[in-house]
Amino acid sequence: MDRADLQPRVRDVAGAIETMETRGAANIADAAADALRAQADGSEAETAAALLAELRAVARLLLATRPTAVSLPNACRYVLRRTGGDSVEAVRASAVESVAEFRARLETAQRDLGQVGANRLRDGDTIMTHCHSTDALACVEAAVDDGKALTALVKETRPRKQGHITARELTELGVDVTMVVDSAARRYMNEVDHVLVGADAIAADGSVVNKIGTSGLAVVARERGTPVVVAAGTLKLDPATMTGNAVEIEMREESEVLDETEREAIGDISVENPAFDVTPPRYVDAIVTERGQFPPESIVTLMRELFGEGPTEPWQEP
Amino acid sequence: MDRADLQPRVRDVAGAIETMETRGAANIADAAADALRAQADGSEAETAAALLAELRAVARLLLATRPTAVSLPNACRYVLRRTGGDSVEAVRASAVESVAEFRARLETAQRDLGQVGANRLRDGDTIMTHCHSTDALACVEAAVDDGKALTALVKETRPRKQGHITARELTELGVDVTMVVDSAARRYMNEVDHVLVGADAIAADGSVVNKIGTSGLAVVARERGTPVVVAAGTLKLDPATMTGNAVEIEMREESEVLDETEREAIGDISVENPAFDVTPPRYVDAIVTERGQFPPESIVTLMRELFGEGPTEPWQEP
Amino acid sequence: MDRADLQPRVRDVAGAIETMETRGAANIADAAADALRAQADGSEAETAAALLAELRAVARLLLATRPTAVSLPNACRYVLRRTGGDSVEAVRASAVESVAEFRARLETAQRDLGQVGANRLRDGDTIMTHCHSTDALACVEAAVDDGKALTALVKETRPRKQGHITARELTELGVDVTMVVDSAARRYMNEVDHVLVGADAIAADGSVVNKIGTSGLAVVARERGTPVVVAAGTLKLDPATMTGNAVEIEMREESEVLDETEREAIGDISVENPAFDVTPPRYVDAIVTERGQFPPESIVTLMRELFGEGPTEPWQEP
Amino acid sequence: MDRADLQPRVRDVAGAIETMETRGAANIADAAADALRAQADGSEAETAAALLAELRAVARLLLATRPTAVSLPNACRYVLRRTGGDSVEAVRASAVESVAEFRARLETAQRDLGQVGANRLRDGDTIMTHCHSTDALACVEAAVDDGKALTALVKETRPRKQGHITARELTELGVDVTMVVDSAARRYMNEVDHVLVGADAIAADGSVVNKIGTSGLAVVARERGTPVVVAAGTLKLDPATMTGNAVEIEMREESEVLDETEREAIGDISVENPAFDVTPPRYVDAIVTERGQFPPESIVTLMRELFGEGPTEPWQEP
Amino acid sequence: MDRADLQPRVRDVAGAIETMETRGAANIADAAADALRAQADGSEAETAAALLAELRAVARLLLATRPTAVSLPNACRYVLRRTGGDSVEAVRASAVESVAEFRARLETAQRDLGQVGANRLRDGDTIMTHCHSTDALACVEAAVDDGKALTALVKETRPRKQGHITARELTELGVDVTMVVDSAARRYMNEVDHVLVGADAIAADGSVVNKIGTSGLAVVARERGTPVVVAAGTLKLDPATMTGNAVEIEMREESEVLDETEREAIGDISVENPAFDVTPPRYVDAIVTERGQFPPESIVTLMRELFGEGPTEPWQEP
Amino acid sequence: MDRADLQPRVRDVAGAIETMETRGAANIADAAADALRAQADGSEAETAAALLAELRAVARLLLATRPTAVSLPNACRYVLRRTGGDSVEAVRASAVESVAEFRARLETAQRDLGQVGANRLRDGDTIMTHCHSTDALACVEAAVDDGKALTALVKETRPRKQGHITARELTELGVDVTMVVDSAARRYMNEVDHVLVGADAIAADGSVVNKIGTSGLAVVARERGTPVVVAAGTLKLDPATMTGNAVEIEMREESEVLDETEREAIGDISVENPAFDVTPPRYVDAIVTERGQFPPESIVTLMRELFGEGPTEPWQEP
Repeated sequence: MDRADLQPRVRDVAGAIETMETRGAANIADAAADALRAQADGSEAETAAALLAELRAVARLLLATRPTAVSLPNACRYVLRRTGGDSVEAVRASAVESVAEFRARLETAQRDLGQVGANRLRDGDTIMTHCHSTDALACVEAAVDDGKALTALVKETRPRKQGHITARELTELGVDVTMVVDSAARRYMNEVDHVLVGADAIAADGSVVNKIGTSGLAVVARERGTPVVVAAGTLKLDPATMTGNAVEIEMREESEVLDETEREAIGDISVENPAFDVTPPRYVDAIVTERGQFPPESIVTLMRELFGEGPTEPWQEP
Repeated sequence: MDRADLQPRVRDVAGAIETMETRGAANIADAAADALRAQADGSEAETAAALLAELRAVARLLLATRPTAVSLPNACRYVLRRTGGDSVEAVRASAVESVAEFRARLETAQRDLGQVGANRLRDGDTIMTHCHSTDALACVEAAVDDGKALTALVKETRPRKQGHITARELTELGVDVTMVVDSAARRYMNEVDHVLVGADAIAADGSVVNKIGTSGLAVVARERGTPVVVAAGTLKLDPATMTGNAVEIEMREESEVLDETEREAIGDISVENPAFDVTPPRYVDAIVTERGQFPPESIVTLMRELFGEGPTEPWQEP
Repeated sequence: MDRADLQPRVRDVAGAIETMETRGAANIADAAADALRAQADGSEAETAAALLAELRAVARLLLATRPTAVSLPNACRYVLRRTGGDSVEAVRASAVESVAEFRARLETAQRDLGQVGANRLRDGDTIMTHCHSTDALACVEAAVDDGKALTALVKETRPRKQGHITARELTELGVDVTMVVDSAARRYMNEVDHVLVGADAIAADGSVVNKIGTSGLAVVARERGTPVVVAAGTLKLDPATMTGNAVEIEMREESEVLDETEREAIGDISVENPAFDVTPPRYVDAIVTERGQFPPESIVTLMRELFGEGPTEPWQEP
Repeated sequence: MDRADLQPRVRDVAGAIETMETRGAANIADAAADALRAQADGSEAETAAALLAELRAVARLLLATRPTAVSLPNACRYVLRRTGGDSVEAVRASAVESVAEFRARLETAQRDLGQVGANRLRDGDTIMTHCHSTDALACVEAAVDDGKALTALVKETRPRKQGHITARELTELGVDVTMVVDSAARRYMNEVDHVLVGADAIAADGSVVNKIGTSGLAVVARERGTPVVVAAGTLKLDPATMTGNAVEIEMREESEVLDETEREAIGDISVENPAFDVTPPRYVDAIVTERGQFPPESIVTLMRELFGEGPTEPWQEP
Repeated sequence: MDRADLQPRVRDVAGAIETMETRGAANIADAAADALRAQADGSEAETAAALLAELRAVARLLLATRPTAVSLPNACRYVLRRTGGDSVEAVRASAVESVAEFRARLETAQRDLGQVGANRLRDGDTIMTHCHSTDALACVEAAVDDGKALTALVKETRPRKQGHITARELTELGVDVTMVVDSAARRYMNEVDHVLVGADAIAADGSVVNKIGTSGLAVVARERGTPVVVAAGTLKLDPATMTGNAVEIEMREESEVLDETEREAIGDISVENPAFDVTPPRYVDAIVTERGQFPPESIVTLMRELFGEGPTEPWQEP
Repeated sequence: MDRADLQPRVRDVAGAIETMETRGAANIADAAADALRAQADGSEAETAAALLAELRAVARLLLATRPTAVSLPNACRYVLRRTGGDSVEAVRASAVESVAEFRARLETAQRDLGQVGANRLRDGDTIMTHCHSTDALACVEAAVDDGKALTALVKETRPRKQGHITARELTELGVDVTMVVDSAARRYMNEVDHVLVGADAIAADGSVVNKIGTSGLAVVARERGTPVVVAAGTLKLDPATMTGNAVEIEMREESEVLDETEREAIGDISVENPAFDVTPPRYVDAIVTERGQFPPESIVTLMRELFGEGPTEPWQEP
């Protein structure tokens, strides 16, 4: 596809995902679906095949922006598998419709999993959060809607301090928030009833890929017997891991860790800035999805039920 | 004592300790000793008793700046116990001399413990550091002097990012440094041969009081079988803990965690900013002192040998 | 429903469950089914709808007696889902038949799971029991029938000392029994080949709700590497937990812990007397059901297979 | 069946399995299938029923040679379930065909699981092996074919030193091999990225039956946080364990441990020489099969999917 | 010694210790010392040697009543080592004086260790207790005297329910008490800041011998990261364990566990009723003595300091 | 020293230590002392200084044969520190006398520690051994002398199979012995009451250096709650580790692991054959010495008591 054929919305979406302006798996999936819709809507392709090729190309473009955001391929998979037809119009219509379906399902999914997660929380409980997860926040929101008063210890989550967003949104929900640096997790663990985090991806071996620091937090929570709950819609299940593939860990810019001035003051050093880490299933007590809660060791069963074995990807050229 | 009688150096020292400009237990102890010397040198006291009272008052002033810096009372203890005499001159001379002795011992202590710690490191080893500790750096320096090549993973150590200082000093020693955020500790633990940290205080029950985040780091290190070495001169041993007293944990300014702008963007939340946490002895493999290395569970024996039971404090008015 | 319409057998059953005279999930389920049968048999309802309403009311009455006895709703669910018809006679017949089916299945279930559990036991093994569980005893009985000699360490299980019942029944099976107080579990754990307990409910996250003390026993068993086997027919699986709901823990009378005389001698104190506690799946080696044995982490799969997602309850008024 | 009716190939296969000349579950299954084929091919049975009886007898004979080799009954199960017909010729043809199918599937299975296992390995990784497993080697071979350079620490695996075979085959694949005695596993664990072993059988409770020493290796790997991967085709799943049966552990000759001379030098002692031990699922990170990878706790789901509940065995006389 | 020569007080003391009417190590030691005093006071011995022999005999008699009460030999050791002289009067006087000294020291010891233990408790803390220990209660009393408000979860401590005494005494100190059965310890552990227990004896390998149930409680506390504090005056240190001797565990009457009626209802079973169990040092965070607090692993150093190596016992006939 | 001046006995001793013909720390120390005696006896040195120089040279020669045998330097240290005088005769006499003293002390030490270790064993206990240790056997011998019946599981201890020696000697003591391969340790751990091993060296951080495989055995023992007892006379304490030095681990010949034939059959591989590994103190329950038993964490106190801080070595040329 000629890049000139890309709809502006596609470029905006791809850019916003790449710079992490669009953040959170549901937002990313939603934006990706919308980019596919925009391309379908605005395309000047003259054949059904050409439009399909454009949509596949958009999918591949989007997939390249955040290789670790598993909701991206799952969104593209959903839409492209339901898109087709003999005419440009038929393809366009089916694409638009499947995007609409997908986005509706996305919205329901988060509300449903929120209720499942909320059922685990009791009135008066204290949660500890890491990073920012709309799935985790949906659990809190549903609990608050059920009339439960909650308190939160929010880790700031260096380097990008997404904990600030979490703190603001929890405050807006009426949750009593205390912010701490990431290193303070163990110091306050005794006051915590649940560690509640989201996930960027769930692998078939039950491990949870989430913001760097999650695995250390989970180890410390287990040392104190505090349950770790991962809120993750089924969009986060990564079917490619059923065949043993690891979830790729994005390495991000050094400048998130050290700014120019700091760097110069220190001298000639390296910086490693992985976006995520991997928490083994043995440190996770439950994965909360819109299909119910699961021990991490059994999530592979749900994955097989939803995706079957050995998927071929709809964005590959035939 | 009238505050007007304070020598300017005393105020400078107290201020620098309070703002953490003077950082690191040895530096603090050194500065405190120097403040006592400055007061002795510059005092206009007209009797021995008056000068002694001034020195005790200086000690109490210093002790108030950082209640958790155990090297402060140990420095004051050393100097005041050796200061006395029938005349102003005799008191002045003994104070100056004991300060000189103390500072000499301080210098030797760090070099000696550095050699003990260095002996644990092998050529080619990788260490992980947290915060900034001159005792820990002395181990690295001695190892480098012994011709060992070392690599370091340096945690930035929010909120004050003392890891930047550590990184710069390690680089100056020729150590290959990689900086990571605090949350990345577990992600890189498999590449680490030793976690090497300092201590703000060692308690009689073998627990280690050190920069917030140390205890979580130690738990994660144990989960991977990585040894945790605490470099801590005997100045860090806190004799008050023999009678069950806890080391007081300093709570620091919220502004270290959230600046004004961030705070306003988030809304009405609390911030907890403890300077230190407590690592139980079961997660520490060795405490390295200038008197040799010890399992943390046996440090109480050294503490009793050095300080006896039930000390009364020389800065109390008789 | 007018309470006067209740058959006497219903009141007897409800009373016996409430006072724990009827104990053990299978006995409770059996009694509940029989209460439904009695109501169907003896009812003077004049329409099918009226009889159905009576049966639903009986179910709700029974459910209120022991909110944590998961076999109660599962029994009511089984019977009510199979009860219906256009005439009083049809409703009555279907109710009676489904009760008969249920009770037959109950009997088979326990024998079948008993054989599965028995297969895990070897000739000469020593088991440790907690509380009284007919499912656990069914395993022992099947093992004894297979010619295996067993020895049992029976915990008395304060406050109600159901261990006495277990001891008597094991003795009747020819098992060599030693009674110990609950606190002696770790002292004798080295002599134990299997901890064998029942369950009041199994949750979707794999946790086991059983008599208070089970979770501590399981932790102590794990510390010594002794396998923990939970014998629990599928009637104990609690489908409500798939959506994150916790199993409610019954709080029982203080007088079970302290009698009047003791209470007066002590003075003004509180007593907490929870009937059950929650054992995380990581401390359980196998859950033995009539459908085979399962690691606790995979029981959610069986639960979904048997109950589907999101059941609506047949005792709710339409 | 008269033993004179046995085809010579059957006797050869049975003998070779018994003496462990034929080793490795796939080889055993392959040989067993071939023995059934040979009997079908060469039999002089005059009726379909007689030939079927002969085949069942061959199966029972084979099953007796290595009671713990779970691939043996699985092979017989596969072939006999697909063998039948009204005439000798029809039975013969179906037996030959199902053997061919089975062997083809066996070949594919190992290649497929090899790829799944290979996907877990990264370029430059170090594995530690125990005993000799063609499934584990298939993972290495696929990784090498994918261009990954691997290093291996090979435990010699007393008493039969199957590590020597593993070392030779790894060397032929271009893997850099270091041999160590079994006791050196923990000493070198820090250099290991994956413990990679095969299995003799996988039980429904998720436990792994494999060469003696596997469970201790897995415990030591967990202590260091090193993942343990078990490569085991679905042929290794033992459906008999769903009903609680333990996998029988073969006790082998004392002479494998002590030769005559050694024995005489020592005096009157016993020798215990179990071929296998049992690793609990909590020490295993993933089981790699040709159907994808699974946490050990969820393997029972795959087992039920493949074998259903309560199989009756096709080698039993009707 | 002719038993007729025993003073009545000696017989009373021995009886009260034997029936556990006199309970608690300090009370036992006090009573034993008083028995020696009574014998010295009332003896009609006519020679110094005869009186000494009587006192040794009294010591041996007392030692036989509770072989596991380590404070008994320590009390006898203290008194007899300081008793002697050339005349009956001299022996009598020295015995009376050393008893007085010992009892004074006993009183001081408990107050001093109480203050050490109290320093570990913070205002608002919750403790969990097991059995009844005057040393543990001394810690609570000192904390309350320091103005700290405390809450206590008191385990009833079957079979003798010494928790009732603890509950009453804590209530008298103004502590808010909740009684639970022993099995409820893990259920409430999350609400507990310190497990605080006494000890019957401390062994040279750092293990703590205390009321049956202590070791399981300590394991459960560790699983939740709750510190375990053992309050034990140095009288509880058992010097005989330095040479590897185990502390003998008293087996008590079956009737404490099962009364006659219960026994008959159950049938032919055994009862094991050990008075104590052994908690390994790795589950204990601190041992609080009147000489300060110690990690259990270093208590052997204090033991050697107080008792030297290889004591010969003063109650042995020369 | 000219090598021609060496007494033949010196060469024999050095050779026998080097080839491991002389094995076991006590035997090595004894032989080393005897070599010094032989040199003193047979030397033709003409001055006191020359004889002393010879003895120092003999010490250095011996020290080079087994760098990890800590009893070697401790033996040399003992003898040389007590050797001196103004004449050849005086030097000779003092050397001979101090050798005699040392050997007497060696004999007593083992008997004394044997009694301490024996006190930990109960009649009917089962021990598991690794390698061959005269200190460990001394414990068994003392227990047998005390009338206790013991059973032993003896690990063969590849590569040199010192377990055969242990098995023979235990059999001679009347102990019931079962030999297993090293990999079978976990399989039989449930039948074991004590793991009982010796040590090649004990370090100041409490870690135990012993035959390769000890650390894995200790980890497996801890997983099952089986106590690990290390029998090690104070000769095994390595004072050089007080200043952080690691105990050097001897790497032995490949041919112990693979003989020529095996090597050729396998192809181009490496072999690593470390003689020892390092067990952290947290896996050791007690170290049994002739001075009593100690938790490993407190052995540094004994080390400082016996050797002081910072020894200079008597074999260094002045």
